[in-house]
Amino acid sequence: MNIRYILYLCSRIFFVLAILMVLPILVSLVCEDGCVWAFLIPALVLCVLGILSGIQKPAKGTLFAKEGFAVVTIVWIVFAVFGAVPFMISGVIPRFADAFFETVSGFTTTGSTVLADVESLPRSILFWRQFTNWIGGMGVLAFALAILPLDAVNKAKGGQAAGSDVYIIRAESPGPMFGKLVPKLRFNVQILYIIYAILTVLEILLLLIGGMDLFDAVCHSFSSAGTGGFSTRNISIGAYDSAYIDTVIGIFILLFGVNFNIFYFLLTKNFLGILKSDELRWYLIIVASAVLMITFDIRAIYGDFFISLRYAFFQVASIITTTGFSSVDFNLWSSFSKGILVLLMFIGACASSTGGGLKVSRIIILVKTAVKEIRYYLNPREIRAIRCDGSHVPHSVVTGVSAYFAVYMLIFAGSTILLSLFEHGQSLETCFTAVAACLNNIGPGLDGVGPMENFGFMKDISKYLLSFDMLLGRLELFPILALFSKAAWRH
Amino acid sequence: MNIRYILYLCSRIFFVLAILMVLPILVSLVCEDGCVWAFLIPALVLCVLGILSGIQKPAKGTLFAKEGFAVVTIVWIVFAVFGAVPFMISGVIPRFADAFFETVSGFTTTGSTVLADVESLPRSILFWRQFTNWIGGMGVLAFALAILPLDAVNKAKGGQAAGSDVYIIRAESPGPMFGKLVPKLRFNVQILYIIYAILTVLEILLLLIGGMDLFDAVCHSFSSAGTGGFSTRNISIGAYDSAYIDTVIGIFILLFGVNFNIFYFLLTKNFLGILKSDELRWYLIIVASAVLMITFDIRAIYGDFFISLRYAFFQVASIITTTGFSSVDFNLWSSFSKGILVLLMFIGACASSTGGGLKVSRIIILVKTAVKEIRYYLNPREIRAIRCDGSHVPHSVVTGVSAYFAVYMLIFAGSTILLSLFEHGQSLETCFTAVAACLNNIGPGLDGVGPMENFGFMKDISKYLLSFDMLLGRLELFPILALFSKAAWRH
Repeated sequence: MNIRYILYLCSRIFFVLAILMVLPILVSLVCEDGCVWAFLIPALVLCVLGILSGIQKPAKGTLFAKEGFAVVTIVWIVFAVFGAVPFMISGVIPRFADAFFETVSGFTTTGSTVLADVESLPRSILFWRQFTNWIGGMGVLAFALAILPLDAVNKAKGGQAAGSDVYIIRAESPGPMFGKLVPKLRFNVQILYIIYAILTVLEILLLLIGGMDLFDAVCHSFSSAGTGGFSTRNISIGAYDSAYIDTVIGIFILLFGVNFNIFYFLLTKNFLGILKSDELRWYLIIVASAVLMITFDIRAIYGDFFISLRYAFFQVASIITTTGFSSVDFNLWSSFSKGILVLLMFIGACASSTGGGLKVSRIIILVKTAVKEIRYYLNPREIRAIRCDGSHVPHSVVTGVSAYFAVYMLIFAGSTILLSLFEHGQSLETCFTAVAACLNNIGPGLDGVGPMENFGFMKDISKYLLSFDMLLGRLELFPILALFSKAAWRH
Repeated sequence: MNIRYILYLCSRIFFVLAILMVLPILVSLVCEDGCVWAFLIPALVLCVLGILSGIQKPAKGTLFAKEGFAVVTIVWIVFAVFGAVPFMISGVIPRFADAFFETVSGFTTTGSTVLADVESLPRSILFWRQFTNWIGGMGVLAFALAILPLDAVNKAKGGQAAGSDVYIIRAESPGPMFGKLVPKLRFNVQILYIIYAILTVLEILLLLIGGMDLFDAVCHSFSSAGTGGFSTRNISIGAYDSAYIDTVIGIFILLFGVNFNIFYFLLTKNFLGILKSDELRWYLIIVASAVLMITFDIRAIYGDFFISLRYAFFQVASIITTTGFSSVDFNLWSSFSKGILVLLMFIGACASSTGGGLKVSRIIILVKTAVKEIRYYLNPREIRAIRCDGSHVPHSVVTGVSAYFAVYMLIFAGSTILLSLFEHGQSLETCFTAVAACLNNIGPGLDGVGPMENFGFMKDISKYLLSFDMLLGRLELFPILALFSKAAWRH
């Protein structure tokens, strides 16, 4: 491990986080909610830390994947710890475990909360909470890399380690990459952030037209863009009870769940690339069929077809993109509809989007592997090659996806057992869906952690466990798990 | 498809099933329960069918895997349909869907039942029900191959198709085979049956010593040997409330859940082979740790450590071997203990045992694949080879196991959604564990299908779905799924 390089990069990140806190400070000044110090103190501490850790020039030397993963993991933890301080200083969430959970939930775009009443929070705190969703959506480090001056970072790396950027981006951008690797370069990270910002502004405008006030429109656009799912209202989007707002937000979260390469293709007028995208096609088919099935199922509850369609569309969009908004208490739906939602939780959004879950592209590869294997079983001479987006998927990617799925289910099973040990009185459904909601970065689960409940009742140890799951889910397991391997610490 | 060869082999199977029905006829004669005709009628029909389908000499020609799979699937369905007739004629289970479910559950060694009161059944019917567990344990076709005269089958195949035996055995014997392929030859099938019979007789003797009457001892030994889990008592093994019987049955089902190669090694005094077995070691470690965790957890309910240990040991043995006996209503345990049991449901017993589930050896390969992949992620130059039992696992087996896991989870998820559609009022836990119990060939699930409940309340269509899952689980998915592929029907 090149500790000095890691330290140097971290010092830059401290400044970035301090700068990010200027925004809620401004909100606090405008709204006069008296929370300026809640942000000013951690921002100042971060600046001091940044200066201290940046004093030493980074050591030269080869940088490997492990340094990249270490930076990613450390930075996410630093963000979570310092991001939690405003909640504690302002007295909104006095316990560290709770504030940490809430912040991890924000940055990982999970959207699970320990707060029963968010409407009473100071505006700046509420803004910060939503803002974490927006920052986390594209990745806190990608953000840092996008805004840091090119020069500084290159100098920091002694000109030798252009590769570690790639590891950082790879660790933060979700999904297997078998198409063109758009976010490979700093240039492309900036393009992605521009697309991200434009879509966010568009959503703010459309929500304003729908009658939402500016603060709520900005906040909800932040949490939609990151597919985070935090809301400024206690009963989430259900508070507006508006078909227009449901539709706008539903469409936008679906857009943020699309592989950002598609928008890049749109910008470069590469329409063939869009048509050839298997992932986009599957994503739309899964969404459409889930919406139809649930619409027919919940018609018995709501009577009207169009009301059922509206609720089904919004909830499917919210769950498959792993946003976690709710416009209605879906915990009251039948096992069939809830079963579909749980399945969507695991499928998740597209790769290279802001959404979580296993990712549609992995599901495609898993299904194709399954079909191939059955054919192979019948005829062992058949070649086991898999095509996606019109081209061959390298064998290492296929093996990787299968292994990823296995690791995922192992982590999922282990976490569920542990959580049921910690939360002894809770139902299996509560523990099962709490882990599913956190590992897939969704937010609400079912039963005890349903959309009208929150995670506040849990023990501290459960909150740390679930925070760990959220980080694992957001960083797609491997960067964090790799740090637990002996090889990462070998010289 | 070589239909005439399939027909010819089936004709033999008809006779085998007719012969198997002689045993319950004898029981009926001894116990004078008036059910002789319930078995005699289907037996006679089977003889007539056997003669008719055996008239034509089988066509010569190359036989492929697909013929093997077709035979396996057809024969299992024939067994299930004709095996159901005695239940219907005797009036015990008048509906076909119910009788079919019960018989499939018997032959696949699942042990799920639609009967609320088994104690009132005629003795011969009860005997037949338990007997199906015993036959199904080793595979209905392996059984046929073991007892059919070598000559007849060879002649039937025109001397050209010695390979299709292998396909049949492969389809019926569970688990990936990366060790020595013991059950490759007819000779070995017979050895396995001898081990199976000796262990069964031993268990009968030990249960008799424990004070069980002869009929119950035979019946419970049958369902232990097949890890089926049918019982002659309404509250299963709990009816005896004896530490001795719990222990004897617990140990024997654990033995039947061991890879039969281990017994073969014992017979041939190959002790090194036993010591080198990763699967045996993992199996014992998983059992021991599950027993310990549950013991400490349920001590709060039962107070005494040893009583808790006894219940925990029996239930863990029953679930991991996918037997499904219960000595206590584990549905009342905490989410932690229930969560562990659900996990054990999926892990299942060892490969080449009579148990179901994913099999310990697949779990080993999945875990090792996961670890390798994490290391590979850190250092892409590292070789992704996996060792088991001291030797390299071929890459095709590793790929196969990952694909198997993916297919398994897809089938599992699909079945759960379908079941929750059919059984609209039921909880997600009921649907989830009902499918888990059937696909893994266990028997009882949780909540609505817990150990004190039964599957009788379900709709016919749900019973057919679950019967299909049981067959898929018992034949390990691929032989049946392969028949749905276009390639199986191409000339």
